[in-house]
Amino acid sequence: MKKELTIGLFGFGCVGKGLYDVLEQTELINANIKHIVVKDKSKKREIDASNFSFDPNVILEDDEVNTVVELIDDADAAYHIVVKALKRGKNVVSANKKLIANHLEELIKTARENQVSFLYEAAVCASIPIIRTLEEYYNTDSISKVEGICNGTTNYIFSQTDNGKSYAEALQEAQDLGFAESDPTLDVDGFDAKYKLSILIKHAFGLTVDPDQIFNYGIRHVKNQDVQFGKEKNFRLKLISNVIRDKNQLIPVVAPHFVKEDHPTYNVNDSFNAVAVKGLFSDQQTLVGRGAGAFPTASAVLSDISALQFDYKYEYRKEIVASSLSITDNYNINVYIGSTSAQELAAVRFEKTSEEYHGNDYHYKTGFVSLSTLKDINFNDRESLFLAVLPENNKGTLDKNDQTVIAEKTEI
Amino acid sequence: MKKELTIGLFGFGCVGKGLYDVLEQTELINANIKHIVVKDKSKKREIDASNFSFDPNVILEDDEVNTVVELIDDADAAYHIVVKALKRGKNVVSANKKLIANHLEELIKTARENQVSFLYEAAVCASIPIIRTLEEYYNTDSISKVEGICNGTTNYIFSQTDNGKSYAEALQEAQDLGFAESDPTLDVDGFDAKYKLSILIKHAFGLTVDPDQIFNYGIRHVKNQDVQFGKEKNFRLKLISNVIRDKNQLIPVVAPHFVKEDHPTYNVNDSFNAVAVKGLFSDQQTLVGRGAGAFPTASAVLSDISALQFDYKYEYRKEIVASSLSITDNYNINVYIGSTSAQELAAVRFEKTSEEYHGNDYHYKTGFVSLSTLKDINFNDRESLFLAVLPENNKGTLDKNDQTVIAEKTEI
Repeated sequence: MKKELTIGLFGFGCVGKGLYDVLEQTELINANIKHIVVKDKSKKREIDASNFSFDPNVILEDDEVNTVVELIDDADAAYHIVVKALKRGKNVVSANKKLIANHLEELIKTARENQVSFLYEAAVCASIPIIRTLEEYYNTDSISKVEGICNGTTNYIFSQTDNGKSYAEALQEAQDLGFAESDPTLDVDGFDAKYKLSILIKHAFGLTVDPDQIFNYGIRHVKNQDVQFGKEKNFRLKLISNVIRDKNQLIPVVAPHFVKEDHPTYNVNDSFNAVAVKGLFSDQQTLVGRGAGAFPTASAVLSDISALQFDYKYEYRKEIVASSLSITDNYNINVYIGSTSAQELAAVRFEKTSEEYHGNDYHYKTGFVSLSTLKDINFNDRESLFLAVLPENNKGTLDKNDQTVIAEKTEI
Repeated sequence: MKKELTIGLFGFGCVGKGLYDVLEQTELINANIKHIVVKDKSKKREIDASNFSFDPNVILEDDEVNTVVELIDDADAAYHIVVKALKRGKNVVSANKKLIANHLEELIKTARENQVSFLYEAAVCASIPIIRTLEEYYNTDSISKVEGICNGTTNYIFSQTDNGKSYAEALQEAQDLGFAESDPTLDVDGFDAKYKLSILIKHAFGLTVDPDQIFNYGIRHVKNQDVQFGKEKNFRLKLISNVIRDKNQLIPVVAPHFVKEDHPTYNVNDSFNAVAVKGLFSDQQTLVGRGAGAFPTASAVLSDISALQFDYKYEYRKEIVASSLSITDNYNINVYIGSTSAQELAAVRFEKTSEEYHGNDYHYKTGFVSLSTLKDINFNDRESLFLAVLPENNKGTLDKNDQTVIAEKTEI
């Protein structure tokens, strides 16, 4: 019943090496890595150089290899590898969220045409089995909301800024610890979290969403005053990937959120990830676990490999109900926007203002802004501004000296 | 590819009715309930009496019925129904933890012999997909610990006692809200949590455990002074089903635990359940969700029914490594024991005492007690005592007036 797996592994970075170690240590799976293909011939690696090949075709054209595990950084190179592997009748396991988010429809189609599996549990929240849970457990439940912390780097940084560090200090620390890349753009501007959200949407709702359709704003411009605003209300900052369903419309957003103590992610700190799913019947479920790291990511890859022994395929069972759904920007979101520039803040159109505050060197407004307005402003490039979504029913109060406070006004 | 399911439903209590409603409302599954068999002919029900039969054979001897859903309270009656259904070649979905825990080995064997499925996701933590996650995701990971809040009633009561209510008040409230039965023994003495733990052990480690082998102590004898002890240290009380693996030994315990803020269940309050799993590769994962309630339980039943459409079976893949494992009592646990009687407290043998406290009308000791000592004392019947497991590395300090405090002593 169990298929024997002969693996061709692309990439021997931290996850690839993790998988190699895990396969060496576990007695629970009988899978054999036949080839490891890497790009850089000169890089020093922890196992002997004789284990490595440099030509992708060593794997792709070896008919004995029935399982390709793709763990490289370069999404474009990964695309060519994955497509060719699927077309050659090989099952593929990938952890490359950018590749998957940008080409999901085509990759699903190619896998189906060639009657092979394309699995990618590790691509979303690493060790948290959220894709499998959406596929298997929620396939009969109507989902109204999926939200979570899908990026460990930004959660680590926000945990540090909540503890009083500046953004620059926290980023440096994350880089020193190896959580953040030297160019952290994909993480700190919310792109990584957006790729993951678009994959979650496919499995939760059946709809394929181009990541470009999703508003993503990251954490780069958070200032001490923004953190302070949250602290006064016992809020914590989390970069949340959020999609809610309102009748036949989906509203996906990736942005910092102020969350209250009753929020499922409130106590999910440091590099941990969490995903909360709200279903019509199951009510709210939250899954919390390691969203990054060699072994947690490798364990998710391994669980996919193990599933291949039993010919497991994603069924995308929600596709049958997805045709009525669409993505909308026509939705107002309750946000906080802080700014060092009163002028730049004033230029943001609010549909409805709840609070407005002006200090000597900092200003903020809260209230409803339409998602299409948010999309029109390139927030990731606007250093003076910081935006965060407010908890539902926020009724914060203000009481400061020497400062102009206009609170709870409907229109200014 | 999808099998058509013709369902025979046993039981139309809160979960049976929930399943009926869910099947009516969802567009995502095509399953048809052909018969509903109930016991009580006279009971008034929300749908017409013509929908009900009273003879189990109406279902069991109807060859058109390929799926039996067993949702009755009586574990003995359920046993005969489930065995007969499996032997007649019908797949069975059950939510009856007592039945499953007490007969698991035989039921698995019967299902295998008859090449049918026996699924029971709803039996453990209702809507939390923990069985499926252990089966599918952790089948290649070596698990070192599973712990969780598997009983919503006791968690609701502890949430209330943490808020200052007495146990009696909190129990009454739980009964008024329908969370607790009029005879709450199974819940409040930890039997329900124990049945669930033995099922979790089967899927996490492959080992079949007779529930009688597991120490279970409940929450019935908690007193305000015990709650106060925890509050001073910022601990919260949770009834935890816990199993740790130490080399080839498993140490399962069901007992109240004082948990600290960093514990995965610390913020899981009211009737919510949570299960945390620690794997060698995946590190720690926590799943939080509704552990009771008509719809959450029905949603888990429905997810099993849906899996049957695809001929899903539990594989119990850990069985291959279970033969080396055994259950042990030869293990010391760090506990708190409070008592209204200094004499009764003194009679409990501590291997090592950390703290001892004597007040006018209350006394406690902390330290290590062997699990076999705990099993010898029938704590559920010892009204003067209350036992709770302490967090790892507890270094609580004491500072009280008018009271004898002996802290941090190794031996007295």
